[in-house]
Amino acid sequence: MYRTHSCGELRLQHRGQQVTLAGWVQRIRNLGGMTFIDLRDRYGITQLTIDENTPDDVRKTAATLGRECVLQATGTVLERRSKNPKIPTGDVELALARITLLNAAETPPFTIEDDSDGGEELRARFRYLDLRRNPLQKAITLRHRMAQEVRSYLDSQQFLEIETPFIIKSTPEGARDFVVPSRMNPGEFYALPQSPQTFKQLLMVAGYDRYFQIVRCFRDEDLRADRQPEFTQIDCEMAFVEREDILQTFEGLAKHLFKSVLGVAWTDNFPRMSYADAMACYGSDKPDIRFDMRLNELTATVKGKNFTPFDTAEYTGGICVQGCADFTRKQLDELAEWVKRPQIGAKGLVYIRWTNDGIKSSIDKYYTSDELSAIAAQCRAAPGDLILLLSGDKKKTRERLGALRIEMGNRLGMRPNNVFAPLWVYDFPLLEWDDATQRFYAMHHPFTAPKPEDLPKFYSANRDDIAQVNANAYDFVLNGVEIGGGSIRIHDASVQQRMFEVLGFSESEANYKFGFIINAFRYGAPPHGGVAFGFDRWCALFGGQETIRDYIAFPKNNTGRDVMLDAPSKIDDAQMTELCLKSEIK
Amino acid sequence: MYRTHSCGELRLQHRGQQVTLAGWVQRIRNLGGMTFIDLRDRYGITQLTIDENTPDDVRKTAATLGRECVLQATGTVLERRSKNPKIPTGDVELALARITLLNAAETPPFTIEDDSDGGEELRARFRYLDLRRNPLQKAITLRHRMAQEVRSYLDSQQFLEIETPFIIKSTPEGARDFVVPSRMNPGEFYALPQSPQTFKQLLMVAGYDRYFQIVRCFRDEDLRADRQPEFTQIDCEMAFVEREDILQTFEGLAKHLFKSVLGVAWTDNFPRMSYADAMACYGSDKPDIRFDMRLNELTATVKGKNFTPFDTAEYTGGICVQGCADFTRKQLDELAEWVKRPQIGAKGLVYIRWTNDGIKSSIDKYYTSDELSAIAAQCRAAPGDLILLLSGDKKKTRERLGALRIEMGNRLGMRPNNVFAPLWVYDFPLLEWDDATQRFYAMHHPFTAPKPEDLPKFYSANRDDIAQVNANAYDFVLNGVEIGGGSIRIHDASVQQRMFEVLGFSESEANYKFGFIINAFRYGAPPHGGVAFGFDRWCALFGGQETIRDYIAFPKNNTGRDVMLDAPSKIDDAQMTELCLKSEIK
Repeated sequence: MYRTHSCGELRLQHRGQQVTLAGWVQRIRNLGGMTFIDLRDRYGITQLTIDENTPDDVRKTAATLGRECVLQATGTVLERRSKNPKIPTGDVELALARITLLNAAETPPFTIEDDSDGGEELRARFRYLDLRRNPLQKAITLRHRMAQEVRSYLDSQQFLEIETPFIIKSTPEGARDFVVPSRMNPGEFYALPQSPQTFKQLLMVAGYDRYFQIVRCFRDEDLRADRQPEFTQIDCEMAFVEREDILQTFEGLAKHLFKSVLGVAWTDNFPRMSYADAMACYGSDKPDIRFDMRLNELTATVKGKNFTPFDTAEYTGGICVQGCADFTRKQLDELAEWVKRPQIGAKGLVYIRWTNDGIKSSIDKYYTSDELSAIAAQCRAAPGDLILLLSGDKKKTRERLGALRIEMGNRLGMRPNNVFAPLWVYDFPLLEWDDATQRFYAMHHPFTAPKPEDLPKFYSANRDDIAQVNANAYDFVLNGVEIGGGSIRIHDASVQQRMFEVLGFSESEANYKFGFIINAFRYGAPPHGGVAFGFDRWCALFGGQETIRDYIAFPKNNTGRDVMLDAPSKIDDAQMTELCLKSEIK
Repeated sequence: MYRTHSCGELRLQHRGQQVTLAGWVQRIRNLGGMTFIDLRDRYGITQLTIDENTPDDVRKTAATLGRECVLQATGTVLERRSKNPKIPTGDVELALARITLLNAAETPPFTIEDDSDGGEELRARFRYLDLRRNPLQKAITLRHRMAQEVRSYLDSQQFLEIETPFIIKSTPEGARDFVVPSRMNPGEFYALPQSPQTFKQLLMVAGYDRYFQIVRCFRDEDLRADRQPEFTQIDCEMAFVEREDILQTFEGLAKHLFKSVLGVAWTDNFPRMSYADAMACYGSDKPDIRFDMRLNELTATVKGKNFTPFDTAEYTGGICVQGCADFTRKQLDELAEWVKRPQIGAKGLVYIRWTNDGIKSSIDKYYTSDELSAIAAQCRAAPGDLILLLSGDKKKTRERLGALRIEMGNRLGMRPNNVFAPLWVYDFPLLEWDDATQRFYAMHHPFTAPKPEDLPKFYSANRDDIAQVNANAYDFVLNGVEIGGGSIRIHDASVQQRMFEVLGFSESEANYKFGFIINAFRYGAPPHGGVAFGFDRWCALFGGQETIRDYIAFPKNNTGRDVMLDAPSKIDDAQMTELCLKSEIK
């Protein structure tokens, strides 16, 4: 062992001991007679001191050191004259007796500090240096802790961690598969799993009634911001359960993580909300309930006053932004521009300000003061509040209002990253009609069970009936982010067959893609259901971050490249020949 | 929840309680007035009884049931009249009050019993049914336990579990990579990792001084028996350590697994043996030391007696098979045939039998009784023993003798699967010369450090010198199976450069393949080393099995196919076009 202690370990109690540390030079301060070296490892920083009593050879070696050199340092632990209360080792220093340069270091291309001076691209190329920074070390350590606690909790609940294969069969339905050419079977391909969905259902058929896995999944999507082509899921499935059992079990998991990782004890049940309510009240299927500011439907109230946008709208709704009646005209114009951005897509923004001078609005021409008061009352506004209204297509307008709500929450500091608001959302639509391909797509996946009470509609010949069928599905939402989702699955072969029919699969197509699972269901499939959590994102949220990249040791960039490795890359012609493949680039 | 208890839970203490179970019908015995149904789940089997007091509708439903139907059964726990001491629930039975058929089952294509009547191929196609069998449930459960215990131990030792990417850069050196075409970067490919080797070394550079991961690895090899194209490794790395620290740490892990999984307490240190000794004494780099029967070199002793095979051989050696002097001529002829099989490749077998009538051998013509006695003495033989001799090329003959030793161990029951003999083997050769390509290959991988004392030879211009360099490498062997291997890594950029030179990589080739790690080593790489364990095999050995297939939930067959999924398979033309790929099958 190159060390007796870590750089985060020494305290006053070690005073007088001779110890050996090893680590990286964080910084060197030369104060004439004295030199201080901060030595860093994963566990902390310890100050090494050189003064007139330090052996000559140590002083000579020390004079050659630069940032990020790897050192082995032996010396005596002393109490510091001027202590540093900011770090746990700040009471002591090491009076150097011997140092060995274990490895030299070129000057890193950016500073290894909490706030580095390196740009994102540069830090990505030198990811191994970026990973030395404290915020990343904390993120990776948090992720480790989360993974261990997930496992220890689920193990205690008799879940078995069962590994499923990574090179499987391509069954494109939803996102694109990454494929893997088979050398031994020329012309044929494996696929990388988008999730272990079918395997976990087979495990239920096989009798492993509580399964989980922390598992990598792959999607060849055109990457949106903060999506990764490979990501990690906490994948779970249970047999002989109903929705309530699953919600209870995984609420237990979430509470365990809150307690063990963040020290947050959660005694109340997590709130629950139907998809319909979430859309109506928050304009989102993943409401951030850290703050209220609900959507208020005003469609009927505002009609008939000759204000064409409201008169012709399927839906008009408003949110009440408390205490913001003093927003300036400039601020309101900027908000109007904000909702008109293509990402939001509203035509315009109507506001009502309830100031000390009464109620003022951008629609004063059409609405009397009493009518505006009625709107304000319906939005539960009080003097000092600002009301923002949007109108148009019901679904889209709600979503726009929901986005505006989040934006106002951000601007007003109502979304602090150390406050947590978990929520279950349930009863999602089962299917989504796509006009382009003239068929239904599964909102979740083709194994999701319809709600039992909607089965008659599910078997209806009428497309509108089918569109109304709800899924026995649920999402776990944390601070406005969908962390997990799942459903009770179809375990009845005939319902599964009807599902494939509704999705427009011919029998041979269904058999080709999902034959193994259709077959499996013939031999005694238990009732079952499950859930999968986005592990990267859950870690990021617990770490107080919105982006997942710092919680993945070696992430890819927005075009799916690993810029550190320079992957993907060309492969040898010989390898192409062996795989019986030829590139055909247009 | 569909049940109040599991099928493995009920005991006499539950007598009189009304309970609900759910599970699969294992068997039905109809004894006229009484019907017994064995209901099975992951936790056990409980007997359901139907007699004259059972409600009519229950009797009717029961009459329709077949094997593997999924049932929900409610009834009262009674003490059995005739108890079954073979199962934990054997004291009780459930007097049925209500049953619900949760799902019907077609008759499975093979019996779901400890010894199934299904062939391997059939069971593979219906893997989800095979997985219902008790031996597989035990295997999968053992694997779960192993994984949890590995993590809990390494976590307690301050190791961080850090996930590394699965779609990386192809750097073929050693086995073939599986590759993944990139749609977003036409003509370019990712590769699936053969191991996270370079990533774990980068993590050491990044300061995460104790890393582990239970991780899937991929090798596109022509499959040998009991190899899988994807397999799982316990992958570990430590910084600021020497070999001794690593052996101590992972001996700690192994002892923890012995204790927590098998209940075997291990107080002594594991034995250690150099590669040279292992080859000399056991003819193997992974000796099974559950039994002795060592190789004895007889080269000098047997020369000069006009027996040409021995006179011309580089090496003659013998093993003493205790108590087998009474082997018949037929048995000995069969052994001679066994060593001549192409897998072994010996020219012939010489035997010496020390019977009550004295020492007899197949080479009596050439050796006097005294000379045979001398050979016997050198082989530490005693009256009643059989000595088997092979001769030829030194390396090959030792290996043949090693294989014969294992065969004799098998035949004589000296390799019981409930006895465990762990062993560290160390100081392997660093390099292997390949005549075909006229270059050295790394025995382990190109990042393995030479033993410090061999550095002068490593820098020699003489090929023979270089061939003699030992690696600072070690293997963990259990019962004659290599379970793990690792090494101290090169952390000095100039030694790494020399390694690439010795391997015949041009600088640009080395940079293209390993530029990122060569670069990383410029910025302060700590001394480090690690080890990786074959998790599938370790599980199988702890489960008392030689083959890994039962310890993998969804394995592939010997041609790399998943016969359940029917993967690999063709993909859509559209998908090929999107990937800019064309099949070119000759």
